[in-house]
Amino acid sequence: MELVQRARQGDYRALARLITLVENEEPEAVEALQELYPYTGKAQVIGITGPPGSGKSTLTDKLVKELRRDNKKVAIVAVDPTSPFTGGAILGDRIRMSDLNLDEGVYIRSMGTRGSLGGLSAATSAVIKILDACNFEYIIIETVGVGQSEIDIVKMADTTLVVMVPGLGDDIQAIKAGILEIGDLFIVNKADRDGANRVVYELKMMLELKSEKSAWEPPVLMAISDQNIGIKEIADKIKEHFNYLVESNYLEIKRRDRLEKEILSIVSMKIYQQIVRKIKREGKLKEYLDALMKKELDPYKLVKQIFAEMKDN
Amino acid sequence: MELVQRARQGDYRALARLITLVENEEPEAVEALQELYPYTGKAQVIGITGPPGSGKSTLTDKLVKELRRDNKKVAIVAVDPTSPFTGGAILGDRIRMSDLNLDEGVYIRSMGTRGSLGGLSAATSAVIKILDACNFEYIIIETVGVGQSEIDIVKMADTTLVVMVPGLGDDIQAIKAGILEIGDLFIVNKADRDGANRVVYELKMMLELKSEKSAWEPPVLMAISDQNIGIKEIADKIKEHFNYLVESNYLEIKRRDRLEKEILSIVSMKIYQQIVRKIKREGKLKEYLDALMKKELDPYKLVKQIFAEMKDN
Repeated sequence: MELVQRARQGDYRALARLITLVENEEPEAVEALQELYPYTGKAQVIGITGPPGSGKSTLTDKLVKELRRDNKKVAIVAVDPTSPFTGGAILGDRIRMSDLNLDEGVYIRSMGTRGSLGGLSAATSAVIKILDACNFEYIIIETVGVGQSEIDIVKMADTTLVVMVPGLGDDIQAIKAGILEIGDLFIVNKADRDGANRVVYELKMMLELKSEKSAWEPPVLMAISDQNIGIKEIADKIKEHFNYLVESNYLEIKRRDRLEKEILSIVSMKIYQQIVRKIKREGKLKEYLDALMKKELDPYKLVKQIFAEMKDN
Repeated sequence: MELVQRARQGDYRALARLITLVENEEPEAVEALQELYPYTGKAQVIGITGPPGSGKSTLTDKLVKELRRDNKKVAIVAVDPTSPFTGGAILGDRIRMSDLNLDEGVYIRSMGTRGSLGGLSAATSAVIKILDACNFEYIIIETVGVGQSEIDIVKMADTTLVVMVPGLGDDIQAIKAGILEIGDLFIVNKADRDGANRVVYELKMMLELKSEKSAWEPPVLMAISDQNIGIKEIADKIKEHFNYLVESNYLEIKRRDRLEKEILSIVSMKIYQQIVRKIKREGKLKEYLDALMKKELDPYKLVKQIFAEMKDN
């Protein structure tokens, strides 16, 4: 495909069109992704997550500038699965990062919820592949939110940064086991605020108590992003983590795991679509629902029945 | 099942055990749900959602007391899909509602993420059925968060309350179309705060501009929950909305739609599980992943291959 070639040669308009193909699930998307797949696997994918108000966008901004010192290409994918309530926010943030937009070595893309959440994580995963195959050395996935869906998206990263901040209150920040498990680096941002030391201390204590330990002990770093304080240390740790992943062979294990999940989820999505089409084509759905509404049938019996019928075919 | 009978007779310990069966996906769960299904369909399911800090828990608390004046049984299901960051919060809130716990006509249950999000909404849907069949007249589903997953859960409700609050800032609250579509009642809580009138005005304006209108025009109500101000009006509107749903026949349409989605999602989940088992049993997954990692195969080709093999069997 010409579009794929142009995108791989550094044409950002072609790249943008490729991503749009994938987002809109156009038929050509699969062809493009198949063509790109052999070139994937070189980028370090960095996930950045944390509660709203933790200053993720500013941190990402400064971090990108730091990573650009080595003249490596950086892509930022800003994912916002929580759009019903917070949709506008992250796009606004992205537009504000105007000086990054002027840097030819940086590509920025926002993605919001389209239809199902499954759809968003499938699309994000495909976009990472596109950027990887288009020679971006760092791909940063930034999520706006605090929910399970963000966690699922961040799991696509090789290196995950969890950004915390003092004084957001327990309602938003109460740290749970899940967060400790996904973080490779913990950043206490806005560290000039009261209580920063306490957050660092609590995080370290909780990390100490973690049941499953690995050779990589997640560091807890302080930063004041808007003053560019602590950013170099974060960039260094990100590179150090990648080296650790490569040398320990853990990168391959992680990527294999992700591929497995991806394959299975594509398969299940396709099956679902097929079944819906089949049931609707046969016009049986109305009949089934009538019986359910009248309580002549229960949903669990019906499911068994649909299964049995499928096997007969 | 004895457990089902005891739960239906008002034994809360039996009820709690039934819900746990469903949450843990025990084999007896399906049997129990089949037995309960004919008794479902009477309760009004009320969804309450809104950003963290909007005072949903206090509002729920007062609303339950108001609804209890008619001596009808009320169940609260506090669902927290965002547990990695905010997990502890809602449980804490629930424990604080100690005077509700003393009321024999109120049953409170918290549910958090277990495995997949799909799992949580399937479990929530089953729990609603259990409570409905156990003669709760009002079932309130309260979600802690702001994300797409909460929206999906709230869609199980007959009547949805969206709680807003002045002064949370655009970052958290930016109102998007999705929210306007799901709300049957909009509450501006903490209405003694600065800016309450503006939030009411903005909401009304956005509701005016909505493209799809129905005979039910969602009211925007003010409340100061901790002073019990505005609660009776909310309870009245909730009852009014249910009457509207029944009389317009829209309740049946909504419930039919929900059943359809539920059936299709149970079927696809089951098929998915079967395929995963099949692929893993045949030991092919390792081989597939090796080829993918070596780029001898791409994920999309593999999916086609898996499909072709399935049809041959």
